[in-house]
Amino acid sequence: MVIREATENDFEEIWPIFHEIVSAGETYAYPRDTSKEAAKKLWFHKPQKTFVLEVDGQILGTYYIKTNQTGAGRHVCNCGYMVSSKARGRGLATAMCEHSQKEATELGYKAMQFNFVASSNEGAVRLWKKLGFEIVGRLPKAFNHPRKGYIDAFVMYKWLEP
Amino acid sequence: MVIREATENDFEEIWPIFHEIVSAGETYAYPRDTSKEAAKKLWFHKPQKTFVLEVDGQILGTYYIKTNQTGAGRHVCNCGYMVSSKARGRGLATAMCEHSQKEATELGYKAMQFNFVASSNEGAVRLWKKLGFEIVGRLPKAFNHPRKGYIDAFVMYKWLEP
Repeated sequence: MVIREATENDFEEIWPIFHEIVSAGETYAYPRDTSKEAAKKLWFHKPQKTFVLEVDGQILGTYYIKTNQTGAGRHVCNCGYMVSSKARGRGLATAMCEHSQKEATELGYKAMQFNFVASSNEGAVRLWKKLGFEIVGRLPKAFNHPRKGYIDAFVMYKWLEP
Repeated sequence: MVIREATENDFEEIWPIFHEIVSAGETYAYPRDTSKEAAKKLWFHKPQKTFVLEVDGQILGTYYIKTNQTGAGRHVCNCGYMVSSKARGRGLATAMCEHSQKEATELGYKAMQFNFVASSNEGAVRLWKKLGFEIVGRLPKAFNHPRKGYIDAFVMYKWLEP
């Protein structure tokens, strides 16, 4: 398993993972019909850095890191992680989240925040908690889930400095 | 007191208010040295709509309304309000917040969220509570206040439908 910074050439391999996850509408707040072109902007141009996780030369996961707020909030970063459905349950999200925390610290960030975690995404919530994140907010009915309707979303947060 | 939709021509009158508040760095998470040009983009082009509050033909307050998250979160809006220091304590923020809630409902939003309220901004927190917002999250040390250092920020939220 290798995690390395992504290049734009990697996007052809990232897109099927992005599209599968975003079109399902159950975890990310991107429009479900986000186009390939828009996806590239969201995943490569808005973030500060984008990474891919490769196993045997095949991209199976990806994440971005970006500043969550400017000015008075610029010491807090935000990350988003995606794992191919082919590779779930093999620790890829854990590996990327741990990698991102080191990367964040190297970039000078002091904390990491997830702004909008669907409360139905129990696997992710359990994993982020295991990795030291706390639920610091609950947004009532803020996530419009395609099958469950309006459900709560969590704000999760971790201070990275020891 | 009149609240009306802003035009770009109003920006000359908005800028001194914006600059005074943002350069102080105590309430907004925009960079303290945000330029006039960048301010215009932030206040006019990113939001869905921008309003001004006039008293006797003079602009003393302004607010924007925008979608807080796309996709699964697009039924929740975000607003930001600014009142000239010349006109504090005269109910202008209350008037704009009430106006924005009506406007949000007309635009089809179901809830309003403030993402990053400095916990030191006690007047604002008290006012938003009075107007029906709840503190639904506390972000530890997420706001770097110019005098107080790293202080907590609140996430505040109101469901607009009865």
